[in-house]
Amino acid sequence: MKIKLADLAIRYGCTLKGDPDATVDSVSSLRDSSPGAICFLANAGYQHYLKDSKATAIILEEKYAGDAPGNCLITHNPHAVYALIAQELHPAPLAQPGIHASVVVGNDCEIANSCEISAGVILGNRVNVSEGVFLGPNCVIGDGVSIGPYTRLYSNVSCYSDVSIGERCIIHSSAVLGSDGFGIAQDESGWVKVPQIGGVRIGDDVEIGAGTTIDRGAIEDTCLGNDVKIDNQVQIAHNVTIGDHTAIAGQSGIAGSSKIGSRCLLGGQTAIVGHLTIADDVVLMGRSTISHSIKTPGVYSSILPAEEAASWRRILARIKQLDSLAKRIIKLEKQSGPQD
Amino acid sequence: MKIKLADLAIRYGCTLKGDPDATVDSVSSLRDSSPGAICFLANAGYQHYLKDSKATAIILEEKYAGDAPGNCLITHNPHAVYALIAQELHPAPLAQPGIHASVVVGNDCEIANSCEISAGVILGNRVNVSEGVFLGPNCVIGDGVSIGPYTRLYSNVSCYSDVSIGERCIIHSSAVLGSDGFGIAQDESGWVKVPQIGGVRIGDDVEIGAGTTIDRGAIEDTCLGNDVKIDNQVQIAHNVTIGDHTAIAGQSGIAGSSKIGSRCLLGGQTAIVGHLTIADDVVLMGRSTISHSIKTPGVYSSILPAEEAASWRRILARIKQLDSLAKRIIKLEKQSGPQD
Amino acid sequence: MKIKLADLAIRYGCTLKGDPDATVDSVSSLRDSSPGAICFLANAGYQHYLKDSKATAIILEEKYAGDAPGNCLITHNPHAVYALIAQELHPAPLAQPGIHASVVVGNDCEIANSCEISAGVILGNRVNVSEGVFLGPNCVIGDGVSIGPYTRLYSNVSCYSDVSIGERCIIHSSAVLGSDGFGIAQDESGWVKVPQIGGVRIGDDVEIGAGTTIDRGAIEDTCLGNDVKIDNQVQIAHNVTIGDHTAIAGQSGIAGSSKIGSRCLLGGQTAIVGHLTIADDVVLMGRSTISHSIKTPGVYSSILPAEEAASWRRILARIKQLDSLAKRIIKLEKQSGPQD
Repeated sequence: MKIKLADLAIRYGCTLKGDPDATVDSVSSLRDSSPGAICFLANAGYQHYLKDSKATAIILEEKYAGDAPGNCLITHNPHAVYALIAQELHPAPLAQPGIHASVVVGNDCEIANSCEISAGVILGNRVNVSEGVFLGPNCVIGDGVSIGPYTRLYSNVSCYSDVSIGERCIIHSSAVLGSDGFGIAQDESGWVKVPQIGGVRIGDDVEIGAGTTIDRGAIEDTCLGNDVKIDNQVQIAHNVTIGDHTAIAGQSGIAGSSKIGSRCLLGGQTAIVGHLTIADDVVLMGRSTISHSIKTPGVYSSILPAEEAASWRRILARIKQLDSLAKRIIKLEKQSGPQD
Repeated sequence: MKIKLADLAIRYGCTLKGDPDATVDSVSSLRDSSPGAICFLANAGYQHYLKDSKATAIILEEKYAGDAPGNCLITHNPHAVYALIAQELHPAPLAQPGIHASVVVGNDCEIANSCEISAGVILGNRVNVSEGVFLGPNCVIGDGVSIGPYTRLYSNVSCYSDVSIGERCIIHSSAVLGSDGFGIAQDESGWVKVPQIGGVRIGDDVEIGAGTTIDRGAIEDTCLGNDVKIDNQVQIAHNVTIGDHTAIAGQSGIAGSSKIGSRCLLGGQTAIVGHLTIADDVVLMGRSTISHSIKTPGVYSSILPAEEAASWRRILARIKQLDSLAKRIIKLEKQSGPQD
Repeated sequence: MKIKLADLAIRYGCTLKGDPDATVDSVSSLRDSSPGAICFLANAGYQHYLKDSKATAIILEEKYAGDAPGNCLITHNPHAVYALIAQELHPAPLAQPGIHASVVVGNDCEIANSCEISAGVILGNRVNVSEGVFLGPNCVIGDGVSIGPYTRLYSNVSCYSDVSIGERCIIHSSAVLGSDGFGIAQDESGWVKVPQIGGVRIGDDVEIGAGTTIDRGAIEDTCLGNDVKIDNQVQIAHNVTIGDHTAIAGQSGIAGSSKIGSRCLLGGQTAIVGHLTIADDVVLMGRSTISHSIKTPGVYSSILPAEEAASWRRILARIKQLDSLAKRIIKLEKQSGPQD
């Protein structure tokens, strides 16, 4: 498929600098581009690759257009425009209607004719699979699960019973939806399991990464809003709720019953303690530890960057002395007289 | 199923306040309750929901009973009593005896008649599956594995060879038991794999979360005691041993050959370095890093809570200056004379 | 199989102390050894087990040989020599040629006769499986994947399309190769998915742990060199490159587009921010956070070891006061006159 730059400029509201009749048929990186390709510049750190680009067109902000050697699509949001053009050139795969002979289907399931159900998939009872759904090989779908239109599950996804997934979602391999929350009560003899009888409700346009686990609710449901984006190996505990458009990077963990607002951004390996409330529009830097509720939008961090080990050892020794150091400062202040 | 409050009070040693003939048939949360339901109050943070509860009965401590609008079951341990009543009202599923036609069974397996073996399960050779066991769809069970009575494996669990699982265990989806430990030796040419020839031994009443990985021992076995409870995405390295009743929250990691005592509690994302010994009754706050053995029961922490980013940047800059700051304090002390 | 110590000494360049005709047929730990076994001492912490060892032979460094009660193989690298001898005594399993009747094979696949393809495996189109490959039960292999000679995939591995795996690799259960990178662009309406059209290229002699996820590239490939060793539950984001012989311990995460050098060692739960470059021969202590590129080989750390909780609370309170404490030091310095 070849697309004219003029068409792209109109479709995505860009200013075109260069040849409107030039065509692109693929995407490339800025650094490793070739004729026929379109690429983008969004991270200033890659600006030095601009002048040598061989791409037919580059999507970029106005301020970089002067440095570009050839055609440009100028926009204030090159990353989003690139994403939309890449979606045109590399459209997401469509379900190829059909149910493989090896698929096991329980009782009282409703499966739209337009679904593709791959080899080795096992469906429980009362499963509802809407039009255009793709279920990858060896997925296991529990009783009473409902999967909205055009949602895709890649291979080896496990869906426990009573999970509901919205429209146009993407669930990656080895993700687990609806496993029991970590609900245990202590008595004299040890642990008593607390039955986890809630479900999981996932909105529309949600993406869930490989190996991510989302526990079912203890009583009420664990809920993800619309357009929530979750990376790989994230742990969402029971009764968590996540607001619309929130994005969570890899290996983060959210403990039970915490409520994350809308449009939040969580960096990788973020940890959120249980029973907290995080406001809308909060940004948590990667690896931050959130042990109190956050009521105010803003950026939060407790990142501790690595140092050369000998230097870190000295700092660490001083960290352990901090209380004593502080007391010595107080004593010095007393000796030196009034501190105004 | 309807149960009289009088019966519950007797069965679980509670003091009943209210109507002994009132019946409950379901559980609910305190906040979102309705007639017929029983709920509990264990976390003081939810106390304000008490007065508006519509539940038929509330399980709580004596001190809250005066605030409850209706029937109460009074106990010193509301969470455990709730768990036991919830188990009555929502009993764990039982195996429905039978082996699905798609199941592949190796040689010399022993499978009790009362087992339920779901579609797509693949058993190796010499597998022993005891009475009442449930194996969920697409589980893979390696050679020589033994699974104790009434244990449940959810879908897509991988069990390597020579893993032994006790009675009444629950293993959640995508868990991996018996994968090779990370045993590599360095020589001139690079890495040499150290064969991992030990197995995994898991006691009775153990629960293992979704996506958790437990490596086989290098030579001897990796061992989990009885009533050990492990949340999702926990990594247990080779030759780790974990004592009875220890509970480990999500995304924690225990490096090779460390020995965790009995009745320990590990918060989420805890990290324990290899070759350590942790005493019985140790509590590790979430996200703590344990780099030395712990000989004394108690609570340990290295949690670093997030701050507003600008404030954290100032703190971080000072952390990096700590050694220099300490030296300046020493100098000031010298200048100000004897510090007695 | 029994092997003479004399043969082992010659084969692995060791000095033999003791009976050259003594034979060993198994490996054991130093602590729990018995006649017929060979064991090793590499960690000084286990030296006290030496004198009571009942093993037929112990592999150790010269300096410990005097303390050993019996036969010794003396070498400067006991761990590597042990690994090689253990490989002789416990050889890795070989593929048993054959394709199970339940295997689903797509179009235009090339499968060597010497492969073992286990029950429940599902191959897409154009898959190339080289000689001696073992695919464990229920693995799913996407379109256009190529798997090099003698590589082993354990059960339930998910391989998306266009993944290439080299020779003699080992991929553990529930690993996911080629899932979409976390590429999302923000526009007014929310998130726009950035198509992930690169692949994954994995070199020779690579081992990948259980539950590890390796995302496909956004445009170019995600690349692992030769002899890279990755433990369980590691997250490798899109477009990461990892140099030869680098080893990464469990639950580490490497964010998008970062380049890790050769012969690096990453401890468990290490976090590396995106778009960084880590030089060759860098050692990152477990749980370190790397937020800047590292240009110099060496050891880096930001580990914060746990303290008894009350003590940690005092330290933490002081950490939050650090900027203020530093300012008070500056003030004291001013009051006390010139600091030379």
